[in-house]
Amino acid sequence: MYFTPPLARLIEEFQRFPGVGPKSAQRMAFYVLNMPAQDVKRLAESIVEAKEKVKHCSRCFHLSANDPCEICSNKKRDGSTLCVVADSRDVIALEKTREYKGYYHVLNGLISPLEGRGPEQLKVRELIHRSHQESVKEVILAINPTIEGDATVLYISSLLKPLGIKTTRIAFGLPMGSDLEYADEITLTRALEGRREV
Amino acid sequence: MYFTPPLARLIEEFQRFPGVGPKSAQRMAFYVLNMPAQDVKRLAESIVEAKEKVKHCSRCFHLSANDPCEICSNKKRDGSTLCVVADSRDVIALEKTREYKGYYHVLNGLISPLEGRGPEQLKVRELIHRSHQESVKEVILAINPTIEGDATVLYISSLLKPLGIKTTRIAFGLPMGSDLEYADEITLTRALEGRREV
Repeated sequence: MYFTPPLARLIEEFQRFPGVGPKSAQRMAFYVLNMPAQDVKRLAESIVEAKEKVKHCSRCFHLSANDPCEICSNKKRDGSTLCVVADSRDVIALEKTREYKGYYHVLNGLISPLEGRGPEQLKVRELIHRSHQESVKEVILAINPTIEGDATVLYISSLLKPLGIKTTRIAFGLPMGSDLEYADEITLTRALEGRREV
Repeated sequence: MYFTPPLARLIEEFQRFPGVGPKSAQRMAFYVLNMPAQDVKRLAESIVEAKEKVKHCSRCFHLSANDPCEICSNKKRDGSTLCVVADSRDVIALEKTREYKGYYHVLNGLISPLEGRGPEQLKVRELIHRSHQESVKEVILAINPTIEGDATVLYISSLLKPLGIKTTRIAFGLPMGSDLEYADEITLTRALEGRREV
């Protein structure tokens, strides 16, 4: 045991974070010891407060301290489109583009038989109900191009189409600034498939 | 403002940590939201507890929840040698070798005129007093091979030598497993200077 117990415990706590190894955890713990006492108190309070106050919006399941969330409460948004994402982080990514003006629906995961996650663990039922109820015209699936993503898209679209709701998926292809020469075959195949008239 | 306020505040707090950028801070904050409530409470308590309990040992200035620290309280260690380091982290690094059995003295920094840090900001006076008082035979300076380190070594050795205390500095040279071909000139020069009969 090299560190004095309270310090060892703190390092251990920090090491639980994703992407934080022993060295980073140590650096963070020493940083805490050097912080002014009131900053340390504020940090601890922020942690507890975020955990206590941030919940899932009961309408779109985005993380928020309010229910309905800030986005759902904004009546100026376009109610005819609904963007479906796997995770709250994806909402943030899309909001940053400032391009999308409709509402969101967070699935809280993707269908993954390997991890034992079926549609009933996701907010799929709520999505179908909502799309119908709110007379949504188009559901945009902003879902990652992975096996889990493809399975989820297939499942959701099979439920939405019979309801007469237009279901689209975001485009896959070359990222901006990239080079065709270095693109992988699957990306290039997807880019070809998704070609559009200029 | 993309994140709900309590979440935005937590991300901001995490971003203050050294080596934690916006993306890592975001990942850490989302991780907190997904942690069980009692784990979140324990994390917050560990932070406050470490800050409250961990102080500098009044004898060697190593970080510890006890005074004197765990190392100074260990009467089995060799009182004739004293290892001088800049930082508490260096004590941990040296302890991990399991080679050194003497006591330590943490300077809490190095002499750096550029950053306005002179010997009076460091625990140099305490080192000299202690070395004399405790009849130390050898002071080992385990100080980084930098400009600040060299200046600090020069200053401390000039004070210790008149007291008849043997003053040594750890060796600099090729790190184990490295390749001479790729070593920089300064390291190689130091390695040549420090050559020993085999």
